[in-house]
Amino acid sequence: ARVAQKIGQTFFFFFVVQECVFENLDLKVKVMKEIDRFASNQTILASSTSCFLPSLFTESLKHRSQALVAHPINPPYFVPLVEIVPASWTSPQTIEKAKEIMQTIGQRPIVLRKEIQGFIVNRIQYAILDECYRLIADNIISVDDIDAVMSEGLGMRYAFLGPWETAHLNANGISEYFEKYAKGIYEVSKTFGETPRMGGPVAEHISKEMFKRIPMKALSAKRVWRDECLIAVSQLKSSKKEK
Amino acid sequence: ARVAQKIGQTFFFFFVVQECVFENLDLKVKVMKEIDRFASNQTILASSTSCFLPSLFTESLKHRSQALVAHPINPPYFVPLVEIVPASWTSPQTIEKAKEIMQTIGQRPIVLRKEIQGFIVNRIQYAILDECYRLIADNIISVDDIDAVMSEGLGMRYAFLGPWETAHLNANGISEYFEKYAKGIYEVSKTFGETPRMGGPVAEHISKEMFKRIPMKALSAKRVWRDECLIAVSQLKSSKKEK
Repeated sequence: ARVAQKIGQTFFFFFVVQECVFENLDLKVKVMKEIDRFASNQTILASSTSCFLPSLFTESLKHRSQALVAHPINPPYFVPLVEIVPASWTSPQTIEKAKEIMQTIGQRPIVLRKEIQGFIVNRIQYAILDECYRLIADNIISVDDIDAVMSEGLGMRYAFLGPWETAHLNANGISEYFEKYAKGIYEVSKTFGETPRMGGPVAEHISKEMFKRIPMKALSAKRVWRDECLIAVSQLKSSKKEK
Repeated sequence: ARVAQKIGQTFFFFFVVQECVFENLDLKVKVMKEIDRFASNQTILASSTSCFLPSLFTESLKHRSQALVAHPINPPYFVPLVEIVPASWTSPQTIEKAKEIMQTIGQRPIVLRKEIQGFIVNRIQYAILDECYRLIADNIISVDDIDAVMSEGLGMRYAFLGPWETAHLNANGISEYFEKYAKGIYEVSKTFGETPRMGGPVAEHISKEMFKRIPMKALSAKRVWRDECLIAVSQLKSSKKEK
């Protein structure tokens, strides 16, 4: 509460207070309440949470129409995406203003029209992980090879193009893509198995393989390397600004 | 057949014949048969297909133990990934040899242990497209914003790190990741809807948005831009070779 009080005092004249305490719902409720006490009618009360729906910790706030989730992607210094997730009581002006501020500081905000479990980033990430997990559980491919599918294949395109843009370019436009491939996509997708519960022998196998490739003591050096790559690709993206 | 005959004569002394005719099963059967006639006991009969299981067009070949799919990713000049997909009768030596040759020419082969619909690349791509499609059908997010989730967020990491590596670094190793997030991943994934059939008003809406962003006449310039980006990121990846 003392920290929140300090935040409240410091940021009183600012438009945004960005809460980024640990992912603990009770703590979020408490901190948001404290921020609420010090907020003006102009303050945006934003939360960095990646997992709690905004309705879970903003309902009882006096300024709840000014509250939303603004979820940055790790590491936010180099990855511009921010997910803006409103609760049903978040005002359109708050969403607009939050979006504007994010754009001003060089982020790329995306706006959800309503809250949904996992927001967008994690839903897509989990759709990928689920299928990767099943492919390993079914002994189709190794852990190393499935990482390469992304890092030496799909991921190189995805650093510049989203899934729809990719499809749009892979045919003479997305309408031809749907005509040619929609049936095939459906037939393949129908064979996806059940939602996997990640645990037990398969998870242990993945862990074993991953620690063989990147041991615990190499993790922090690898994170430094990742961040260097992200800085470089972010500069590359600026230099290749879309035509 | 005359083309195949010519290919057969030209490549007689080579280890690999890479078939890359149109995605038409009858044609593949016919061309592979012709290649088979001219193949030696050392020749690898590889197909570039992205959609037909190798068992569908290699069963009756004399050299069927030397046949497999070697599916390159578009555009293969810049994206190193190649999917090697054996039929049940493909010999382990053929798989090993194909893998070796791909590595020699600077590709990154991944090896499937058995054939599966969509192979790996398209299964992952379709898992992503399915969820993106549902999120648009459910009016959660715009077509533009969902592309940005990849190109301004997840994709920047995926150009360097696969899904497991990403998770491994986002926690103190993948085992902690599973401990902390497996339950959440399952809860979110359970809310994924039915396998979508891509067509009708939602597909039309996506097409309309995409052609607004990239009109038909701008497609080829955009493909040139994409390839320039892929060359640049491929050079960047070489310069950042993993520690």
